[in-house]
Amino acid sequence: MPPVLSISRRTRRTPFTDRVSAAGVSGYTVYNRMLLPTVFRSVVEDYRHLKSAVQVWDVACERQVEVRGPQAAELVQMLTPRDLSGMQIGQCLYTPMVDETGGMLNDPVTVKLEEDRYWISIADSDLLLWVKALAIGYRMTVDVFEPDVSPLAIQGPRADDLAARVFGEAARSIRFFRYKRLEFDGTPFVVARSGYSKQGGFEIYVEDGRHGEPLWDALFSAGSDLDVRAGCPNLIERIEGGMLSYGNDMTQANTPHECGLGRFCDTRSAIGCVGRDALLRVAAEGPLRQIRHLEIDGDAVPPCTEPWVVRSEEGPVGQVTSAAWSPDFGTNVSIGMIDREAWVEGTRLEVATPAGPRGAVVREKPWL
Amino acid sequence: MPPVLSISRRTRRTPFTDRVSAAGVSGYTVYNRMLLPTVFRSVVEDYRHLKSAVQVWDVACERQVEVRGPQAAELVQMLTPRDLSGMQIGQCLYTPMVDETGGMLNDPVTVKLEEDRYWISIADSDLLLWVKALAIGYRMTVDVFEPDVSPLAIQGPRADDLAARVFGEAARSIRFFRYKRLEFDGTPFVVARSGYSKQGGFEIYVEDGRHGEPLWDALFSAGSDLDVRAGCPNLIERIEGGMLSYGNDMTQANTPHECGLGRFCDTRSAIGCVGRDALLRVAAEGPLRQIRHLEIDGDAVPPCTEPWVVRSEEGPVGQVTSAAWSPDFGTNVSIGMIDREAWVEGTRLEVATPAGPRGAVVREKPWL
Repeated sequence: MPPVLSISRRTRRTPFTDRVSAAGVSGYTVYNRMLLPTVFRSVVEDYRHLKSAVQVWDVACERQVEVRGPQAAELVQMLTPRDLSGMQIGQCLYTPMVDETGGMLNDPVTVKLEEDRYWISIADSDLLLWVKALAIGYRMTVDVFEPDVSPLAIQGPRADDLAARVFGEAARSIRFFRYKRLEFDGTPFVVARSGYSKQGGFEIYVEDGRHGEPLWDALFSAGSDLDVRAGCPNLIERIEGGMLSYGNDMTQANTPHECGLGRFCDTRSAIGCVGRDALLRVAAEGPLRQIRHLEIDGDAVPPCTEPWVVRSEEGPVGQVTSAAWSPDFGTNVSIGMIDREAWVEGTRLEVATPAGPRGAVVREKPWL
Repeated sequence: MPPVLSISRRTRRTPFTDRVSAAGVSGYTVYNRMLLPTVFRSVVEDYRHLKSAVQVWDVACERQVEVRGPQAAELVQMLTPRDLSGMQIGQCLYTPMVDETGGMLNDPVTVKLEEDRYWISIADSDLLLWVKALAIGYRMTVDVFEPDVSPLAIQGPRADDLAARVFGEAARSIRFFRYKRLEFDGTPFVVARSGYSKQGGFEIYVEDGRHGEPLWDALFSAGSDLDVRAGCPNLIERIEGGMLSYGNDMTQANTPHECGLGRFCDTRSAIGCVGRDALLRVAAEGPLRQIRHLEIDGDAVPPCTEPWVVRSEEGPVGQVTSAAWSPDFGTNVSIGMIDREAWVEGTRLEVATPAGPRGAVVREKPWL
């Protein structure tokens, strides 16, 4: 029997938890000290449905760090090597955030609400503490806090149809990594074209938890003929899509360049960024290891609950950190960090899985 | 069926996880993004055993923030309103840590290893990010990092006997909230008399995860006639003992005074402390609500997974955040935060539990 999750106030519920329970959630993880569903029917059944219909995801665990005030833009630029000087209201940008050594602290989406107001929609680390302490140490004129905002995602090939029925036809014209303020039941919501799948869709930033259940219910009644279901980020699909998971595929030990995120490091222009000097050095020398996608031979591998060592004939050359059997590609798909000498597309390596050593092939691109 | 916990690299394993699995763990929570066992046989069976024998607990999730360097003492004092100017090497002190408004960020034990070297043994928040960013903002000469240190607790009435068999008779003379460096297998470990139960015992700060399994195995073979078992912090016993849980009974919204921790706030002398000015104000005015213990009428209440509203005849006066049926006291024991007008010992109130409203009586002291 796999261990159950003991739920307490500390593993926070979301505005959607009662609906998620009623929809028959069967697995959870804890993400930003909050409940994040991982499985409803089965990971494979959820995967097929995500690729063919439309799902509503409780991703309230993507907590927001709100930064507002005269020095908000300056503080947000200190957090990331991505140059935000041209960022416009209405944009939401993927922004790797680093410490003073260039180590990844989080890989959030930053939403620009006003010239002096931002939401940082975080991955799994208490970035709030980092941002607050920098603001105090540098005596900046900003407010930094966690607002009552809970993202709800609509993902899948029918996402546009569902969003249009609830938020109006304007939803269809939202561009990738842009948002519009669209009304539901008389209240405007930030609706962004983004999300943690390759199937397309939206993330709705639900301000004020009391709107959570009415919005959830409206999506399900509007989408009954679209076969809308409760879903969640799907392990198989996100590996096929090469979507990295902070804490799984990368940690504070890794630079953005190691994570394949060098294109987001405008370190010459992003002059306020903490860690800029360290990243200038990294950019000049290039990373010594980098994220790669590995196709692992044989039948379905067991769950990857700790890094699996990857070897070449010369010895260890990296690790696999996420892996799953892909029904669509008929192979095990995986994400790992591979040393420079072995990271070329097509290199054959061996992965030490709990089911024994397995052959594997390096890919530069993911499957989707 | 209660949802299972989906385990990945992100919900980190500990050096003891394989042993914990082999011992038959049946429930987990995630604490500091790491696995923390919550149940082995059953919460009640674990409770009776904890009170009568001795248990070994994997509390590696109490991660350490190491602070070292010329300004280490200065930085650690910035984190807490407790006056650390007299703290000696060999002491480990309970140190509430607060933000600039006096809100609780964590309630760790701080261990003084050398004049310029500390471990902060944290509750459930990424205090590392707070401490690192303060050090950067104030340009302090310190190193701040998470070392490879995993606490293992020995708790229960036979803890002294077990510790003495593995670490020698010197273990018996360790005073409360002090530590000694004692050898196991040729390696010295920090062994402190502390732990998250009222049954007495030790926390061993296991440096270098490779020592984890040999130490675990030595404790189990030395203690077989003491009925040693794998255990974990026990919900019933910790509520009986009035031990607060950060994230459950208190959050960033609460001051130390609200948490009943005013005695640790030496705000007049702890002059480096961030949040000191706010806490001087709080100390002068007194808190408006405070932690109390409530005896809840009737049979066993369901698990407390979100705050339960507490009412007097005049309306809402607070909330209960931890609750369990106590076999030894024959009542429901609980911890909550109660407004000033209703917090006097003996006040009768009503608690909105998921099993319906229940009468309750306020206690100033816990049961153990």
